[in-house]
Amino acid sequence: MKCSYCSRDAVYYQRYAGKHLCRKHFTAFFEKKVRATIKKYRMIETGDRVAIALSGGKDSVTLTKVLMELYGDRRDLEFVAVTIDEGIEGYREKTLKIAREVTRSVGIEHYVASFENNFSAKLDEIVKVGEKLPCSYCGVFRKYLLNKSARNLSASKLATAHNLDDESQTILMNFINADIDRLARLIPQRDQEGLVRRIKPFMELYEKEVVTYGFLKNYPMSFDECPYSYFPVRAVVRDFIYEFEQKYPGRKISILRSLEKLSNGLKITNPQIELYKCEICGEPTSQKLCQACKLVNELKVKINIRHNEDLSLTKS
Amino acid sequence: MKCSYCSRDAVYYQRYAGKHLCRKHFTAFFEKKVRATIKKYRMIETGDRVAIALSGGKDSVTLTKVLMELYGDRRDLEFVAVTIDEGIEGYREKTLKIAREVTRSVGIEHYVASFENNFSAKLDEIVKVGEKLPCSYCGVFRKYLLNKSARNLSASKLATAHNLDDESQTILMNFINADIDRLARLIPQRDQEGLVRRIKPFMELYEKEVVTYGFLKNYPMSFDECPYSYFPVRAVVRDFIYEFEQKYPGRKISILRSLEKLSNGLKITNPQIELYKCEICGEPTSQKLCQACKLVNELKVKINIRHNEDLSLTKS
Repeated sequence: MKCSYCSRDAVYYQRYAGKHLCRKHFTAFFEKKVRATIKKYRMIETGDRVAIALSGGKDSVTLTKVLMELYGDRRDLEFVAVTIDEGIEGYREKTLKIAREVTRSVGIEHYVASFENNFSAKLDEIVKVGEKLPCSYCGVFRKYLLNKSARNLSASKLATAHNLDDESQTILMNFINADIDRLARLIPQRDQEGLVRRIKPFMELYEKEVVTYGFLKNYPMSFDECPYSYFPVRAVVRDFIYEFEQKYPGRKISILRSLEKLSNGLKITNPQIELYKCEICGEPTSQKLCQACKLVNELKVKINIRHNEDLSLTKS
Repeated sequence: MKCSYCSRDAVYYQRYAGKHLCRKHFTAFFEKKVRATIKKYRMIETGDRVAIALSGGKDSVTLTKVLMELYGDRRDLEFVAVTIDEGIEGYREKTLKIAREVTRSVGIEHYVASFENNFSAKLDEIVKVGEKLPCSYCGVFRKYLLNKSARNLSASKLATAHNLDDESQTILMNFINADIDRLARLIPQRDQEGLVRRIKPFMELYEKEVVTYGFLKNYPMSFDECPYSYFPVRAVVRDFIYEFEQKYPGRKISILRSLEKLSNGLKITNPQIELYKCEICGEPTSQKLCQACKLVNELKVKINIRHNEDLSLTKS
């Protein structure tokens, strides 16, 4: 199949647009989309210091590489990468190594915050005693450390590699569950004390597009899945969106647009949640205690887990 | 299995509530829910003249019966039933007969508006030449005639038998398609010139609950499906909600709640669509021509179809 824009062979078929794209035109489309998304939501602006959440998996490696390719020369911007080491034996070592290599190759500083140094317990230990799904613990502690690390590194933005597949699943899941607070949090927020603003430059790109770009660019791509990965609800939603997208291409983006169109209303009627300081650790929270401290309290009767007051962040 | 509230045998298991209900307690639950829904959304108020859209199928028969059972004695209310005869051979005759019997049994007037008398063409003829799905024509003409009939009968409300399954499917479908206008229309609206306000007393009841109630009450129940019935998109959404509801009971109601929670925002930011009078027939429309006149224009080059100026409504 030929490219819809030139005589070269196509490497990607963009079903929702009915376009076949060659390597050159796909790359151009991808980079243009990243730039447009960043501009549209004012994700990166002059003077920003952007902390990139770099797990070392395929998506975050591509994010780091493409951000540096598109914005690395800008003298009014700074970039730094943060990896969270949850303590998952046989899984995280490999992606940590990739993360180190990638940051070296693009010439930015790389920091690692581990569950072990910050909570005195690895995820491997937590899941043995925890009654919740592993992701419930990991998600809370990871987000907690990412925000604290970004703030500690004086970052003004925290970039994550969430793509359109992730976003449309989260939106639909929260809509079905009538979780309007979580829906509201997906809308770009104003800055809030103690919370580094999260940005998602891939939010309008299909996962397949992110992977294809990474492949074409020969980025180191790890497809390893976390051994604890288990999202039964999300899987149902993912399969449904997949089937819907197959029949009516473009549904992922229209789910995102739905939330956007509703967001004006949300901003008016659901004023942003008031943030307090956690009574134990002082981190921003919408309740008395932050989620991380609640989980630590729940777990500390079973294992040796505690909240180290100062952030432990290691330069790698 | 015993009833969760008494020692009788249960006839219904309410999965989302974890309750087993006997005939008496199920009936009480059902009627209470209908009353509560009507009260919550102010569907029926003193002085109302309610036109019931009665196809003669299981849902609308149950609606007619239960409305008369609960509100039939109220001297400040009036009820009348309207059936649309689309002109579907071998299908509509049977339900028309049921509709006639039901209205006789509850002692209300029954009117029939047919496609044939109002558009000079039956649905059977339209589908032979139309390029759209049968439901695209039928839905537009049916809603058109229902509203015109209700207004002609001086009704202040038009009651339809849409249940929670219908509503949750419609909401999710419109959300996924980013069709915010249609989402907004699902929210109870203020009165608009020429449009009789539609009410849905079963909107918070599962289809299964409506059917069970009809069975227990020995109502005449027709389960015949329209021979043209074909909703490929809705079927995908229905199956998905079914699967989700199986795993996490209560999803149908939470989809409804999501829209409700978002509705305040919608009312503010999406002011109700301005309504004009159709340039051909004078019926309310958000565009220059109403949907029915557009379809008539499209079809009249192929068959003998026209818009009879005066409504033809036959008392049965």
